[in-house]
Amino acid sequence: MVRIAYVDGHATDLAFSKSFWVDALGLVLTEETADALYLRGLEERNHHSVVLRKGNEPDMTAIGFKVYEEEDLDRAAHHCSTIGLPWTFVERPAQGRTLAFRDPNGLPIELFASMDAVPSMLRKYGVYAGARVQRIDHVNCFSSDVQASYDFFVDIGFRTTEYTAADEQDSLWSAWLHRKGNVHDIAFTSGLGPRFHHVGMWVSSVTDIIHTCDVLATTGWLPSMERGPGRHGISNAFFLYLRDPDGHRIELFTSDYLTVDPDFEPTRWELRDPQRQTVWGMPAPKSWFEEGTRFPGVAVQKPKIEAQPIVAPW
Amino acid sequence: MVRIAYVDGHATDLAFSKSFWVDALGLVLTEETADALYLRGLEERNHHSVVLRKGNEPDMTAIGFKVYEEEDLDRAAHHCSTIGLPWTFVERPAQGRTLAFRDPNGLPIELFASMDAVPSMLRKYGVYAGARVQRIDHVNCFSSDVQASYDFFVDIGFRTTEYTAADEQDSLWSAWLHRKGNVHDIAFTSGLGPRFHHVGMWVSSVTDIIHTCDVLATTGWLPSMERGPGRHGISNAFFLYLRDPDGHRIELFTSDYLTVDPDFEPTRWELRDPQRQTVWGMPAPKSWFEEGTRFPGVAVQKPKIEAQPIVAPW
Amino acid sequence: MVRIAYVDGHATDLAFSKSFWVDALGLVLTEETADALYLRGLEERNHHSVVLRKGNEPDMTAIGFKVYEEEDLDRAAHHCSTIGLPWTFVERPAQGRTLAFRDPNGLPIELFASMDAVPSMLRKYGVYAGARVQRIDHVNCFSSDVQASYDFFVDIGFRTTEYTAADEQDSLWSAWLHRKGNVHDIAFTSGLGPRFHHVGMWVSSVTDIIHTCDVLATTGWLPSMERGPGRHGISNAFFLYLRDPDGHRIELFTSDYLTVDPDFEPTRWELRDPQRQTVWGMPAPKSWFEEGTRFPGVAVQKPKIEAQPIVAPW
Amino acid sequence: MVRIAYVDGHATDLAFSKSFWVDALGLVLTEETADALYLRGLEERNHHSVVLRKGNEPDMTAIGFKVYEEEDLDRAAHHCSTIGLPWTFVERPAQGRTLAFRDPNGLPIELFASMDAVPSMLRKYGVYAGARVQRIDHVNCFSSDVQASYDFFVDIGFRTTEYTAADEQDSLWSAWLHRKGNVHDIAFTSGLGPRFHHVGMWVSSVTDIIHTCDVLATTGWLPSMERGPGRHGISNAFFLYLRDPDGHRIELFTSDYLTVDPDFEPTRWELRDPQRQTVWGMPAPKSWFEEGTRFPGVAVQKPKIEAQPIVAPW
Repeated sequence: MVRIAYVDGHATDLAFSKSFWVDALGLVLTEETADALYLRGLEERNHHSVVLRKGNEPDMTAIGFKVYEEEDLDRAAHHCSTIGLPWTFVERPAQGRTLAFRDPNGLPIELFASMDAVPSMLRKYGVYAGARVQRIDHVNCFSSDVQASYDFFVDIGFRTTEYTAADEQDSLWSAWLHRKGNVHDIAFTSGLGPRFHHVGMWVSSVTDIIHTCDVLATTGWLPSMERGPGRHGISNAFFLYLRDPDGHRIELFTSDYLTVDPDFEPTRWELRDPQRQTVWGMPAPKSWFEEGTRFPGVAVQKPKIEAQPIVAPW
Repeated sequence: MVRIAYVDGHATDLAFSKSFWVDALGLVLTEETADALYLRGLEERNHHSVVLRKGNEPDMTAIGFKVYEEEDLDRAAHHCSTIGLPWTFVERPAQGRTLAFRDPNGLPIELFASMDAVPSMLRKYGVYAGARVQRIDHVNCFSSDVQASYDFFVDIGFRTTEYTAADEQDSLWSAWLHRKGNVHDIAFTSGLGPRFHHVGMWVSSVTDIIHTCDVLATTGWLPSMERGPGRHGISNAFFLYLRDPDGHRIELFTSDYLTVDPDFEPTRWELRDPQRQTVWGMPAPKSWFEEGTRFPGVAVQKPKIEAQPIVAPW
Repeated sequence: MVRIAYVDGHATDLAFSKSFWVDALGLVLTEETADALYLRGLEERNHHSVVLRKGNEPDMTAIGFKVYEEEDLDRAAHHCSTIGLPWTFVERPAQGRTLAFRDPNGLPIELFASMDAVPSMLRKYGVYAGARVQRIDHVNCFSSDVQASYDFFVDIGFRTTEYTAADEQDSLWSAWLHRKGNVHDIAFTSGLGPRFHHVGMWVSSVTDIIHTCDVLATTGWLPSMERGPGRHGISNAFFLYLRDPDGHRIELFTSDYLTVDPDFEPTRWELRDPQRQTVWGMPAPKSWFEEGTRFPGVAVQKPKIEAQPIVAPW
Repeated sequence: MVRIAYVDGHATDLAFSKSFWVDALGLVLTEETADALYLRGLEERNHHSVVLRKGNEPDMTAIGFKVYEEEDLDRAAHHCSTIGLPWTFVERPAQGRTLAFRDPNGLPIELFASMDAVPSMLRKYGVYAGARVQRIDHVNCFSSDVQASYDFFVDIGFRTTEYTAADEQDSLWSAWLHRKGNVHDIAFTSGLGPRFHHVGMWVSSVTDIIHTCDVLATTGWLPSMERGPGRHGISNAFFLYLRDPDGHRIELFTSDYLTVDPDFEPTRWELRDPQRQTVWGMPAPKSWFEEGTRFPGVAVQKPKIEAQPIVAPW
C-alpha cells in the first residue's frame, strides 16, 4: 500500500459541486463528463483524487488507495478471502484494475496500482487559485469499533502515529495511521459507523487557509464553513473544516511532520485532554462531532466506546 | 490631535504582567521601575504606548492622545472650560505637560505634545519576538451614549470611518473615529459605560497572529485567548482578542486601510448584519460583549440603546 | 495636499498593458475605453490611481495629487504664479477641476479635489487576484537637483521621513517626503532628471509579493522582473521592482510605518551605507539605477550631485 | 535505508558556530560538550541531525543515513565487501552501531539504525526561534562522476525525482535521489568532487525564510547570506543559502512535494534551461557554483562532464 489516493462520492448537483470545489476551492478539474467531476490538487500527477458522480443520494462510494504493483491487487484479494471478506474487481475510469471490498466494519475500499498520468501543476503558478490545494492527504472515518478498524489496517501494513486512549488500558478511541510517511493516510474516530468524516487536503501555508476563509465568507459560501481555522493537538494540523454542497466534509490542512522512522513512537493522547482536539480556537460545533457521510448499503452501528464529553478549556 | 498615543492602567502584579506583555507578546520594555512598566511597539519612537502601574484595582487610569504642539494643550483646556468640563495639568513620567480631563460621559483623557524619544526597533529584526507588535493603533470603549461620545470627539476633529446604525434613523450604536488616517484612533460601542473595551495593537501580518495563538496556547496563556482569530466586517480587521493578567483586553490587529481622503464616505452597518461583527469565525463569547475595564472614580450608566442580540450566521 | 493619487502615462499597446496590470498583477479595471485603461487597487474608492493612455511614446504625462478642497486648487495656482510657474486647468476623465503645472525642475504635476467615487473591493475577497495590490502608495522620480525638488515640495507642506546625505554638510542626494502619514507620497533621487523612476503600489504581505514572483516567472513575465524581492534600508520596504510592457517601473511594496508625529525625526542615511539600498538581496541591476521614464516635452539635466558608486556589501 | 539523518563536520570555533546555528538560525541544541554541538530541528526526535565537532580543518566528516534495522548494517557491510568498498564500525555518541564506508567516489557515509530519542519540539511553540527549522531534509554534494554516484545510490534503493541532462543522451549532470518520499535525501551535481555542497533544512513557510533574511542581515550575519531568497525550478524549492562561520553551506528550504508513487516519472531538465536553477531571482554567485567543503582524506577529481555556463535569463 502506497498511500491514500482518492475519495469517490455522489453529488446531487454537479454544477453546484463544481462551483464549490473548482471555483471556490481552486481544485484542478482534470476531466468533466455528463455524470462526473474528476478533481486533483496542484501537484498531483494522477488523474483524480476526488471524484464526484451524479447521484440522488449524497453518499460516499469508496475510499481509494494506491498499491505498489499489479500483483499487490491479487495479494490483497487473497488476503480478503483468507479473512472472509468478499471482493470483486471493478471498472473505474482512468484507473487500471481496481479491487473493491469492504473492511470488517463495512468501510468500502478500492485498491489500484495504476492511474492515468496527468501533468503536475505545481510549477504552473498562473493556475493557482482559491485554497491552492496541493494534494489529497488523508481520510478520516467514524468507526463503531476503532480497535477492529485499527487491527485490520495495521495488519495490512499501516503504522500508527497518534492515538486517543479512552482509558488507562489504552482502549482505542481514535487512531491515526499512515503509509506515506506523514501523520496519516486514514484515521478512525469512535462514533456511529462506518461513516465518512472528512477528506483532508494538504495546503502549503496558513495564509492560504486564512485567505480561503475570507473568500468563502464573502462569496456566498459562509454556510460551508463548519469549523476553524484552528490548531489541532493531534497531528499539529492548522485546519479549516468545510462542507461541500452535499455535506461532504473537507479539511484544509497544513503543518504536519515526517514519520518515516521505523522506531517512531506514537503519541498518546488522553480523551479528556482538551488540547488534543483544539490547541486553541473555539470548540467544534455539534455537527462536526455527529455528522458524517453514509457509505451506500452499509448499516451503521453504535460505537463500542462512547465519546466522553469534550470539556472546553475555557 | 495627532493620534492615539497610550493607555495607562493598573496591574495588580507587575511581574506577571511583564511575563505576558513582554515575554509572551513581545512588546519592547522601554523602562521598568519598581512601580511601573513602560512598553511600546517595535516601530514606536515615543517612550511608551502602554503603561502599567502597580495598583490594587486593575482599572484603566487614562487614554492618552498626542497633540501637535504645546499650544494645543491650552486650546484644549479652554475648550473644556467652554463646554463645562473640569481639567487639570498632571505629571506623567517621560512626557511633557499633560492635560487631564474627562469627556462628557466620564472617559478619562490625557493630552500631551511631547514625550521622550526612544529608538525605533523596526529595523532591529533581532529583537522581534512574540506577536511582533509594531504600534498602538486604537482604543475601543463602551459608551452608555454613543451619540454623545461621537459628538464630543467629532467636535474636536475626529472623523468617522464606519458606524453601526441601530435603526433606520441612524441612531448610533457604535462608531469608529480617527485622526491618523486609518480606520480608527478610538471607537465606541453601546454598553454599560464608560468602560474600556480594548487597546488595539497593530501587527503586520496574519502569520504573526496565528503564531501568537500557537505560542500562547502552549506556554500557559491559553486562558488569555478570549476571541478569534477571525475577521471583522467593520474595519476589515483580522483580529485576536486577548486578556492580560488583570483582564485588560488587547486586540492584535492587521488588515486596515487608508482613510485620509476628506471626501471619504463612512461605511454604514446594520446592527443585525452578522458579518459586521464576524465575517467568519465563531461568534464572540459573552465576556467579549459584556466585560470591560472600569475607569477609576467614574460611575457607569446603562446604555441608552440596548444591544440587539447578535444572530450568528450559522 | 492630501496624498499621491495617480500616475498618468502612455502605453503603446493597451491590450498588452492590460494583460500585465490586470491579468498578471491583479489591479482592478475601473474603466476601459478605446484609448485608455483606468486602474485602481483593491481598497481604493477613487476612480483611478493608474491611468494608461494609448500613445506612440511610452512617457509619463503627469503625477496627480489630491488636495483637500476646490479652493486649494486656486490657492495652488496662486502659489505657482507667485513663484513664476505657469499653470493651467485641464480636463481629466472622472475628475473634477484639475490644475496642471510643472515644478521648478519640470516635473509635471496635476492637482484635483474630487474624483468619481467607486466601491472599495477590500472586502470583496472573491476578486483578489495576482499581487492583491491594495492602493497607490508613492512615486519616486529622478531629479537633477534634489535640493530644489525638496525645497519646492517642503514649501507646499510635504514632510521628510528619510534622506540620503551626499556629504557631511547633508547635501541632499535623495529624499522621502510624505503627506498621508507613512514614509512617502513622493521621493527624489539624484540622477538625470526629471524622470519618473517608479510608482509604488502597497500590498499587505510578503507572501503576496513572493507569489507574484512565482506567477510572473512562470507565465511569460519573467522579463518584467527587474529587481528583488529584497529589503530596503530606506523605508524598511520589502520590495519587488517590475517593468510594465512599456518600461514603466512599479514597486510592489510592504512593511512601512506610521509618520504622523509632528516631532518625527527624519532618518539620515550615508550615501555609502550599503544597507541604505539593500539590507539583503543582490545589488540592484544597472537598469534600476539608470533607466527611467521621460516626461513629455521636458529636457533632462545631469544631476548636480553625481551618484557615488554603490559598494555591494559582499 | 530510511532517510538522510545527519551531517557531521568540523568547526574551528564552536562558540561562534553556536551563535550562528542556535542563536541566529534557532536550531535546537540537544547537547553541548567541550568538543561538540549536537543540533536538531524542531520536530526531530532523534538526538542530532547536525553535529559540529571542534577541529582545525573545517571539513565534513560524514553524511549519516538511518536504516530500518540493525541487520541492515550487516547487509550494507556485506554489500560494500561485494563491490570492493572497505568498511568499518565506528563509535558515534548517542547512536547505536554505526557503519562507516566511502562510496565509489570517496564520499564518506555512515549508517545507523538507532539513535537516542529526544522530545519533538513541534508543539512547543514557545521555543520556536530564528528560522524555525523543522528537520534535516537533504544533502547536496559535488561529484566528479554523477553517473557513478547515481549508480551506487540507485543500486542501494534510492529513487530519482529530478535530473539534469547534459546532452540528448541524458548524460547525467545532476540528480536528485530520495528514500523518504519527497524530492531528495541526497543530490549530486557535477563538479570538483567529492565535496559537500550543502545540507538542506526544511522550514514550513516562505515567511520564516524572509524573516531569517531580515534577522541575519541586521545582526551581523549579512556575510553568511550567499544566495537567495529565490525559487529553484528543480525541486520547486523556495530557498535561502547560507554559509556558517566555517563556510559549511546550509539551504533553508520549503515548497517540496510528495514522491512516494512507484510510477513517479522523474522530471528531466536541460542543463541550459535557466529556470532549472532560478525560476526568478538573481543568478547564483560564483562561490555557490564553485565552493564546497572537503571531506577529510579524500582527493578531489575534476568532473567528467564540465558545467556549461549558466545563461542568466535577463
